[in-house]
Amino acid sequence: MSALPQPVLVIGTGLIGTSLALALRRCGVVVLLEDRDPAALAVAVQRGAGVAAVPGDTAPGLVVVAVPPAATAAVVGQALDRFPTAVVTDVASVKVPVLRALLAAGQPVDRYVGGHPMAGREVSGPAAARADLLDDRAWVVTPHPGAADRAVAVVQELALAVRALPVLMPPEEHDRAVALVSHAPQVLSSLLAARLLDSSETAVSIAGQGLRDMTRIAASDPSLWVEILAANAAKVGDVLAAVRDDLDRLLAALEVADGTGATVLVDALRRGNAGRQRVPGKHGARPAPTVELPVAVPDAPGELGRLFAAVAAAGVSVEDVRIEHVLGRPTGVVEIAVAQPAAEPLAAALRDGGWEVRG
Amino acid sequence: MSALPQPVLVIGTGLIGTSLALALRRCGVVVLLEDRDPAALAVAVQRGAGVAAVPGDTAPGLVVVAVPPAATAAVVGQALDRFPTAVVTDVASVKVPVLRALLAAGQPVDRYVGGHPMAGREVSGPAAARADLLDDRAWVVTPHPGAADRAVAVVQELALAVRALPVLMPPEEHDRAVALVSHAPQVLSSLLAARLLDSSETAVSIAGQGLRDMTRIAASDPSLWVEILAANAAKVGDVLAAVRDDLDRLLAALEVADGTGATVLVDALRRGNAGRQRVPGKHGARPAPTVELPVAVPDAPGELGRLFAAVAAAGVSVEDVRIEHVLGRPTGVVEIAVAQPAAEPLAAALRDGGWEVRG
Repeated sequence: MSALPQPVLVIGTGLIGTSLALALRRCGVVVLLEDRDPAALAVAVQRGAGVAAVPGDTAPGLVVVAVPPAATAAVVGQALDRFPTAVVTDVASVKVPVLRALLAAGQPVDRYVGGHPMAGREVSGPAAARADLLDDRAWVVTPHPGAADRAVAVVQELALAVRALPVLMPPEEHDRAVALVSHAPQVLSSLLAARLLDSSETAVSIAGQGLRDMTRIAASDPSLWVEILAANAAKVGDVLAAVRDDLDRLLAALEVADGTGATVLVDALRRGNAGRQRVPGKHGARPAPTVELPVAVPDAPGELGRLFAAVAAAGVSVEDVRIEHVLGRPTGVVEIAVAQPAAEPLAAALRDGGWEVRG
Repeated sequence: MSALPQPVLVIGTGLIGTSLALALRRCGVVVLLEDRDPAALAVAVQRGAGVAAVPGDTAPGLVVVAVPPAATAAVVGQALDRFPTAVVTDVASVKVPVLRALLAAGQPVDRYVGGHPMAGREVSGPAAARADLLDDRAWVVTPHPGAADRAVAVVQELALAVRALPVLMPPEEHDRAVALVSHAPQVLSSLLAARLLDSSETAVSIAGQGLRDMTRIAASDPSLWVEILAANAAKVGDVLAAVRDDLDRLLAALEVADGTGATVLVDALRRGNAGRQRVPGKHGARPAPTVELPVAVPDAPGELGRLFAAVAAAGVSVEDVRIEHVLGRPTGVVEIAVAQPAAEPLAAALRDGGWEVRG
């Protein structure tokens, strides 16, 4: 049972709306559902996400708008009109345009606080929804100067009720943050991957883990991403323009790479080192230094299980893991990242156990 | 025992030279060693990589030059002079400058064929060398029009003798390929990571797996990479200039993102989708479609082992694996990539076994 004002009305029973509703039902919250598509609504009801709202319902204490980005501001505005005492929030992935539209329309934004649960999936629709979609995910809650303290508290409570981790951030800061850590990386991954279209099969065949990592998110859905980029165009543009300026300097340096340019190149690489150290590790905090141990693992069922059982038997906690992909042969190297002090003892223990720890 | 012409002389007993020599000793090849640094040479000899070359030695049938990139062409030239019947190769990571310097010096390049074993490590020196460093790694062998067939065959044989996987590619094509699949990605990763230096702690704290992947190689060694970028400056510049031009088009599109710009954005994202599909999967070949199953794994020793044992018990082969890193809490989600047809049965089997397979 949760301290949320009830019932909660979820408008929009797509993937996020339905998953959220299922998560609220999981902790006993009364959930009303609306969707302009009766078929989507029926699926959500059938999944157990709540009941379809009808005119005689008790007025909701909280309304969550989970409709596509372009429709969000209008639906939030209608909800503020329809339910004069309810707190209203939304889940759009860009926050400033929603708030700006509400202010321009003269809406009472004291009861509105936006949010952004950070749980993208490559699927959509209520059939793909799951009660645990938001478990352990960051949910950015974006208070603004006109918001009532209670509204902020209710939206934080919503995030906690569905087992997400609320992070407070003003709308401007949120949009700048996602431009930097999510939207600009998406664009750079896509542009790099697009360069591969011009290359020979052989050239691509010698690619290693670096290229694989750099192009993974290039597989994302274009129709979703064009909406996100359009909604956050100015801030994404700021980050990418800075990258473009750095790239121009670097291109100039490459033309004189043996001489004066080398300083520019080294500086860019060093700044990259420093920036990378700011990326959070396994526990969200500043990462402790880790070491990667490459272990050869036969490509047979059970070998990964044997390996991680051996790691556990050595009493070592795994910080990260990735499989090295190797040209033309079904033999893999698994890179196990562990805290620096654990690396040497683990390597010794694995070798004692007959594992081939490399290089 | 190998069919290589013997003895093999390895000039330069750093990480690659010593590892290569150890791998040759592993299959019984007679190895002579040279290094202008007597201390490095002594370590390599002490490690069992071969014997220090002396004036009375039998002339080598094959010379491998494994000195720093900037010194490679000169040392290869000297080797061609010193050993008039030997095949000579090198391991520098950019190939055209070496060949060009030899041709400019009027050297007999029929006996020279370059190579590039693709095995970077973050360590260096003979003490870090290992006999298995090159096992299963691609070794690009770069024939040129003036090379004798026998020289090409000997260098391929060298790669096979140390259990690497030879890939034939002309020097120009090699340098263009590594500019695309290795050097340009390195630069873009560094530039993106450098952008994080300007951001707040909170902004970086909400970063997800995308940013982690995109900035991993930004941790690479600047002093090594400045040499590589300088040696391949023109071809890296070609790739990066094309990225810069695409970026300029995209920045212009972001300024009119709701209207005419949307087409440009969608096109860039779609080209990224198509390019990503060219990146080779686990076995070097065009990847079969895989599906990622997110499985919640308690952050306790042994859980990863239990999970992969369960996957093996289901008879499913793991194509890739990564640990999702989640804000602020020591609970992890492990993404297990498996072939598409195996995904549903595996999800069902894991759920039956009590695992939490997420949406």
